Amino acid sequence: MLASFIDVAPGSDFPLDNLPYGIFAPRSAAPRVGVALGELVVDLGALEAAGLFADLPLGSDGPVFDVPTLNHFLALGRPSWDAVRARLQHLLAAETTTLRDEAELRERVFHRQSEVTMHLPMQVGDYTDFYASREHATNVGTMFRGAENALQPNWTHLPVGYHGRASSIVVSGTDIRRPVGQRRPETEGSTPAFGPSRHLDFELELGFVIGGGNALGTPVAIDDAAEHIFGLVLVNDWSARDIQAWEYVPLGPFLGKNFATTVSPWVVPLAALEPFRVAPPPQEPTPLPYLQTDAPWAFDLDLEVDLQTASMDAPHPITHVNARRLYWTAAQFVAHHTVGGCNLRPGDLLGSGTVSGETLDNAGCLLERTWRGTRPLTLPNGETRAFLDDGDRVVLRAHAERGALRIGFGEAGGTVLPAAD
Amino acid sequence: MLASFIDVAPGSDFPLDNLPYGIFAPRSAAPRVGVALGELVVDLGALEAAGLFADLPLGSDGPVFDVPTLNHFLALGRPSWDAVRARLQHLLAAETTTLRDEAELRERVFHRQSEVTMHLPMQVGDYTDFYASREHATNVGTMFRGAENALQPNWTHLPVGYHGRASSIVVSGTDIRRPVGQRRPETEGSTPAFGPSRHLDFELELGFVIGGGNALGTPVAIDDAAEHIFGLVLVNDWSARDIQAWEYVPLGPFLGKNFATTVSPWVVPLAALEPFRVAPPPQEPTPLPYLQTDAPWAFDLDLEVDLQTASMDAPHPITHVNARRLYWTAAQFVAHHTVGGCNLRPGDLLGSGTVSGETLDNAGCLLERTWRGTRPLTLPNGETRAFLDDGDRVVLRAHAERGALRIGFGEAGGTVLPAAD
Repeated sequence: MLASFIDVAPGSDFPLDNLPYGIFAPRSAAPRVGVALGELVVDLGALEAAGLFADLPLGSDGPVFDVPTLNHFLALGRPSWDAVRARLQHLLAAETTTLRDEAELRERVFHRQSEVTMHLPMQVGDYTDFYASREHATNVGTMFRGAENALQPNWTHLPVGYHGRASSIVVSGTDIRRPVGQRRPETEGSTPAFGPSRHLDFELELGFVIGGGNALGTPVAIDDAAEHIFGLVLVNDWSARDIQAWEYVPLGPFLGKNFATTVSPWVVPLAALEPFRVAPPPQEPTPLPYLQTDAPWAFDLDLEVDLQTASMDAPHPITHVNARRLYWTAAQFVAHHTVGGCNLRPGDLLGSGTVSGETLDNAGCLLERTWRGTRPLTLPNGETRAFLDDGDRVVLRAHAERGALRIGFGEAGGTVLPAAD
Repeated sequence: MLASFIDVAPGSDFPLDNLPYGIFAPRSAAPRVGVALGELVVDLGALEAAGLFADLPLGSDGPVFDVPTLNHFLALGRPSWDAVRARLQHLLAAETTTLRDEAELRERVFHRQSEVTMHLPMQVGDYTDFYASREHATNVGTMFRGAENALQPNWTHLPVGYHGRASSIVVSGTDIRRPVGQRRPETEGSTPAFGPSRHLDFELELGFVIGGGNALGTPVAIDDAAEHIFGLVLVNDWSARDIQAWEYVPLGPFLGKNFATTVSPWVVPLAALEPFRVAPPPQEPTPLPYLQTDAPWAFDLDLEVDLQTASMDAPHPITHVNARRLYWTAAQFVAHHTVGGCNLRPGDLLGSGTVSGETLDNAGCLLERTWRGTRPLTLPNGETRAFLDDGDRVVLRAHAERGALRIGFGEAGGTVLPAAD
C-alpha cells in the first residue's frame, strides 16, 4: 500500500493506490475533474492551473481537467492516463513536499467529499448493455422459456448485448421516478393495462468506461482492449419488468429500461485494479479467435446490494456476489462490439448486464432474487419485497481487497419516487 | 409557391418554400449552418455575422449558426425556428433588396452546393428506431414466424421501438464498409460461421429530428409533439441480415445494425411539410389515450430507392412507396418514448423503421423485396441481386408535390465497400 501525507483511514475505498476519477463541484464553483483520496477530493483543475502537469502529454487543446467532463482526458489515451496517475501518486506521496508543505496550494487543491457535489463523470455518447452473467441469463431464460431452453443457442458463442439509452444515465444520488407505461393485457386480445410500473427492479452491473475510441470500420483486436478501457464504475440499470415483458418482442427492451440508469460517481482506473485481475471462468465451447485472449480480464471484486425502505433505519445487504464469475469479459465486449466496424468513442459505457451468483440469494436483481416476485424477500423489520416500493433506496457497492490493500468504488445509490401524476 | 431572387429550377427539391437546414463547409473553411435554395447553400453563419438575425430570439450563448452542428439552433425551440424561417423567407424573397442588391454580402452568403462539403447535420445524442410500417412488420413476421403469428400481440398497441447506435450515424456520401461477424452455425450446435456479411441490406426510413427536449421524468403529451419535432431526414439503416438473425435473441439487433446508418444532409423543417400533413391510416384497436391525437401526423411523401451496381451507368429505381402508409406516427413516437419519463434531447433521431408498400415490389428493404433472397431482383443490365454486392450504391430520395409546389429531401446515398481484410 502506498503512503500519502493525506490521512486515509483503514478500510477506506480510496487509498493512494486507487485514485478514481470523477467530476465534482466545490460549493458555488464550476464542475471539474478530481480524484478521490480518503475523505478528500483532489482538484485536478487546480493542479493543472498550478502547472503541475505542464510537462505531461496532455495535448494542446486547452484544459483537460478544469472542464465538467472526463471525456477530454479519456480521449488522450493510455500513455497520458499512465503519466497523470504516476504524477498524482508522486505528488500525493508521504515524502513529496510539493503539495504537502505548501499550505496555500493545499487550500486550493483539497476539498472534503462531504462538501462537494458529484456530477456524471463522463458524457456518454452511447451506452451498451451486455448479458454476460451465465447465472443471470440462465435464471431469466428458465423463467421465460423453461430450464431446457434457458440459454439461447448464440449465448455461449458471443457476448449478447444491445444498445441502451444514454440520455437517462444519472449519477448516484439522483432520485428515480417510477415509470408509467403499458403492461400486458389481463386477457389476451384486450386493452393493455396502463399505469405506474408494479414490478420495478434494480440490476447490479459493472460498467466499463471507454477511453480511446476506434475509427468506424476499424475493429479493435482483443489484445488491444486495455488501450481502450479506461476504468470501471458501478451501474444500476433500473428495470420495469412488467413494461419490459410486454414491449420487448421482437426488438428488445426499451421503455422498461430507458427511464433511468444510475452510475457511481468515481471511475476506478483499470490500473488500480491490476492486482485484482484474474482469469475468467473457462469458456466451453471455445469462442471464435477474435474473442480469445490469455489476458486476465476477470476482476476479483466483491459486489453488494443494500436495500433500505422508508421505514428502515439502516441499509440492509440483500445480495453479495463476486464479479469474477462473469462469463464474458470486458475485453470480449470491446472485441465483439467493434468486430463489424462499429466505432466506440471516449466516454462510452459498456455494462456487463446483471451480475448474479450461484444461488438466488446472490442474484443481482429482484426478478431473480424473488423468482418473479413469487418468493418475496423478508427484511429485518419484517417488511417484505417482491419488487421495489416507493421510498426504497437501493445502493450498489464494490471493492477488491488483499491484505491491507483495498480498492473500492464508493456507491451507486438511488431512491424510488412515486410515479408522476 | 414563394418567389426568390435566386433562380430555382422547376422540379428542384429546394424552393424557397422548403429551406432545409444542413451543415456545410465551403472550400477550406469551417463547417457551419446553411439552408438549401435551388442549387445554392445560404450561409446562415454569414447572415448571423452580418447582424441580420440580431433582433431574433436566438439566446445569448454565442453564435447559433457559425457552429458545426444544428444542435444549438434545435435547442432554442419552435418560436426561434419559426422566427428564423420567416426571416429567411423574407430575406430571400424576390422583392427584398437586403441581399439581392448587395453584391459583396451576396458573395459571402451564397455558395454552390456542388462546391461545398456536407457534414452530419446534428450531433445525435441518442438514436431510436421504430417499427412503424404494418406492411414491413407483417412481412418480416411472416418470414420468421408464419402468417398466423406475423404481428406480435403488442404491435397494434404501441409503436415498437429500440435503441440504435448513435456513433455510427454518417452523412450521405459516406462509403459503407461491409461488416464482418458471426452467422448462425450451418448445423445446430456447431461453431458459428464467421466472415463478411453475405446478406447486406438497406432499410428505407423516415427520420425525425428532435428539437426541443424534455426533462427526465417529464413525459411529452402527444398534442405537444410539434414543439419537439424540428424536421425530417431520410435514413438508411443498413442491416446485415445474417449477423442480425443469429445475434438478435433475446435483446434485439446489435452488430447487424450498428456498423453504419446513413442520413440525408438536409433536415426538412416540419413547417415546410405543413401542406403535406395528412391523416394517418385508421388504428384498430384504438390505442390508449396517451397515443391519441386528431392532428394529421402522416406525411404525403413519395419515397424512392435507387440501386446502381458497379457495372451500371445509371441508378435504377427499385422501390416506390408513400410515407403516409406508416401505421404509427412521429407524434406517437414522441409520446410513447417519453411516457415512462425517458428524456429526449435536441439532435436525437427517431427512425420510422423500414417503410414498405402494399406489395413486395414496393418493400423498403431487400429482405422483403427478394423474400429473404429467394426471389432476386433483376436489374436493367441483366444482373440480379438477392442482397447487396460490393460496389453497389443505394440512394434514398423523398419528395412531396402538389401542383407547382415541390418539397424535396435531396438524397441519402452510400456505396458498399468490400469488408476489411
